[in-house]
Amino acid sequence: MRVLILFILCFPLIVTAQLNKDSIMIKRMSDEIMNNGKAYDLLRELTKNIGGRLAGSPEQHNAAIWGKVNMEAFQPDKVYFQACKTPNWKRGGKDYAAIVSVNGKPLNKKLEVMALGNSLSSKGLIEGEVLAIADFDELEKRKNEVKGKIVYYHSILDPNEIEAGKAYENAYSYRSDGPSRAAKYGAIGVMIHSLSTASDNEPQTGDMEYNDSFPKIPAIALGPIDAKNLYAQAKKSIIRVQLQTYGYFLPDADENNVVAEVKGTLFPDEIITIGGHLDSWDVNEGAHDDGTGVVHTMEVLRTFKALNYQPKHTIRFVLFANEENGGKGGLKYAELATQHKEKHVLALESDGGGFTPRAIGIGCSTDQLKRFQTWNPLLKHYGTEIVAGGGGADIEPLVSADKNVILTSLIPDGQRYFDLHHAKTDVFENVNKRELLLGAVNIAAFIYLVDQYGVGIN
Amino acid sequence: MRVLILFILCFPLIVTAQLNKDSIMIKRMSDEIMNNGKAYDLLRELTKNIGGRLAGSPEQHNAAIWGKVNMEAFQPDKVYFQACKTPNWKRGGKDYAAIVSVNGKPLNKKLEVMALGNSLSSKGLIEGEVLAIADFDELEKRKNEVKGKIVYYHSILDPNEIEAGKAYENAYSYRSDGPSRAAKYGAIGVMIHSLSTASDNEPQTGDMEYNDSFPKIPAIALGPIDAKNLYAQAKKSIIRVQLQTYGYFLPDADENNVVAEVKGTLFPDEIITIGGHLDSWDVNEGAHDDGTGVVHTMEVLRTFKALNYQPKHTIRFVLFANEENGGKGGLKYAELATQHKEKHVLALESDGGGFTPRAIGIGCSTDQLKRFQTWNPLLKHYGTEIVAGGGGADIEPLVSADKNVILTSLIPDGQRYFDLHHAKTDVFENVNKRELLLGAVNIAAFIYLVDQYGVGIN
Repeated sequence: MRVLILFILCFPLIVTAQLNKDSIMIKRMSDEIMNNGKAYDLLRELTKNIGGRLAGSPEQHNAAIWGKVNMEAFQPDKVYFQACKTPNWKRGGKDYAAIVSVNGKPLNKKLEVMALGNSLSSKGLIEGEVLAIADFDELEKRKNEVKGKIVYYHSILDPNEIEAGKAYENAYSYRSDGPSRAAKYGAIGVMIHSLSTASDNEPQTGDMEYNDSFPKIPAIALGPIDAKNLYAQAKKSIIRVQLQTYGYFLPDADENNVVAEVKGTLFPDEIITIGGHLDSWDVNEGAHDDGTGVVHTMEVLRTFKALNYQPKHTIRFVLFANEENGGKGGLKYAELATQHKEKHVLALESDGGGFTPRAIGIGCSTDQLKRFQTWNPLLKHYGTEIVAGGGGADIEPLVSADKNVILTSLIPDGQRYFDLHHAKTDVFENVNKRELLLGAVNIAAFIYLVDQYGVGIN
Repeated sequence: MRVLILFILCFPLIVTAQLNKDSIMIKRMSDEIMNNGKAYDLLRELTKNIGGRLAGSPEQHNAAIWGKVNMEAFQPDKVYFQACKTPNWKRGGKDYAAIVSVNGKPLNKKLEVMALGNSLSSKGLIEGEVLAIADFDELEKRKNEVKGKIVYYHSILDPNEIEAGKAYENAYSYRSDGPSRAAKYGAIGVMIHSLSTASDNEPQTGDMEYNDSFPKIPAIALGPIDAKNLYAQAKKSIIRVQLQTYGYFLPDADENNVVAEVKGTLFPDEIITIGGHLDSWDVNEGAHDDGTGVVHTMEVLRTFKALNYQPKHTIRFVLFANEENGGKGGLKYAELATQHKEKHVLALESDGGGFTPRAIGIGCSTDQLKRFQTWNPLLKHYGTEIVAGGGGADIEPLVSADKNVILTSLIPDGQRYFDLHHAKTDVFENVNKRELLLGAVNIAAFIYLVDQYGVGIN
């Protein structure tokens, strides 16, 4: 009732009868998902039966087949693979690090660690004195002390930052660029504080990238507790650490984006894309990252078909092959879109986890955003509002195919995400069924509105 | 920056300089809590060192001492006990139920069950045919079939309801009144579907109340999976169940509300109350219910003192002795307020769990609500907005002491709460540190604003 009153006040552009129709349709979708949703069961299959899915692994290969078979069962107009070459990094062994002496006094304190993704083997056990530094500014100031040492970056996520995702972004460059920036000054290895908000001691992996100009030194993430202890200790003592990593690359792998398509009745050549990425890191089940985005995508397809919704625009439901270490899935999707001269209206990515949805983020002009925000009264009951800023690694390349495409994302509550992101704790048990399903409800509602009313740029 | 712009647009009543001051003060409180917050460590102590705290238990007695000692350490003006008689219910044993035959064919399928709080002993093993019914309407229609049977209510929480708390409220009367309503027609026992949203099979206890006019039959909650299976089976077969419960009451216990007080500088006789309840059910650690409300309360006190905030009004930080089975803590607080002719401006309860805060609910007139909502731009960054509807079992009696008191509550995201509410899974491990601390940030910010600007009723 409150929703209907709000319509009248806030929806000048669309007549009330239509809004009532939209409200009813969104409620039908919500009931279908909250009652009969398959997202949670699908996620259990993907995480428990298939498991972690790094590009190049048998699991990732199986996941694509699983995605295709399951989307076919929902009977869209077609389901197909987009073949795609991806990096093929292997961890290669059980990463190891230990403090072996403090101020010359022998010790053997094993540390909880994980090699960073794409990092290379240490080629045996290496040992060095730790140079513990706060940030890149300190690295530059102390560059003459780096040679022959193992640099530790105290890359904690700022606890004062209310948006955990923003704290992650601010610390990200220590993981991605930290190793080469230290190698430039002669470091023999790099350790970082895991980009984690957790109170536990689980290390978190994630992509890093070597600068080819400098030696490719081994790089590991420490568990948060070990990292904080090491940092405190290294400030007042001389600490020596041993570490060993085993990373290597095989020749690029053959993976597949999985694309399901429902043809538009009025604008069959105008495409709306919804997607998440199938791949995950090797150390967990890739439940929140990004199993939940995958099953959100599948659930919206299932729901549209279950309710016999015939979209005006062509809608694509895409499970991207490779996001974590290379982003080759999204690049391939964009490459084919360019090749086929496709017109892309809007794309939405779900890659923020399966937590309670808080917003739909949209990257567009202020005027357009205001227009989208007239839909807020229809979404509010389901927990979201439309806010500025959208995108996602898998859909961003699409701008190269159609510069008018509007990039959007589901924005779930982010407080728990960086507790388990890229850690072994990102497992099915840490996904809540209602939170997961609510994400699909809000994506379905938003995509329905986009399909009905377009994006106002034509 | 965005916040400051919003101030100017939305805050006609208060000059910009003041708002800027408020924004800075709220940010200081947020940083203090997110960085140095003790709520999570205090919760660990309360749940892990003390444990479940049913009124009348040694744990509850210890929890009050713990609360007093810890609040004293934060150096408010005073900390004191309010002695309070509470019910003293004992579970008395390991509740048991099993299906013993289906259509006359013997079986021994043990069911996951918990006796409802306040329910009494079955006085040995009882056995009866199950009458499985959907709701009270069906009970009334089939009242002639009830005699001698064990009634099962299929009291699921409506999955279509987006607000899990509302679904809980709608099903609540099956737990509270279901046993006596069935006893009225001669039932020998009652089983309900736990008031749970979980996908697991954990039964959930909670208060029930006998109607003295009818026999006090044993009453248990079934785990969600067992309940759904039983309901499906009982619709097509004759099922006999055995059950045994052990509940009894000891003479009322002597418990204590714990009250910390910081005297107001300008309005020492006008009181603002913040509180949560110390007691919990016996089957878990009472982490979300309501350990998080207890440590929210303590954290706000700690923060105000750490920042040397001198409130204009007197602020009370209250750990209520008994909410779960009797509500005697809140009644005692109100009784003493009446006795001392206290003036109560506003009370806030945190009893919705330690999840990401979404809103501050306020029970007041529409005009007053609008005035409170001018504070929304100050709260939004921290995740909340002011909405209609507030209260809580511990603070509601206060209206009898001062009819002008405004009742408010912290409203956290509720999607996960009824997965673990009153189940053995309500443990420390299921509380997230950042989500918990953010709750304290939003309470502190709101109470600060109330203290600074009052509630506009004078």
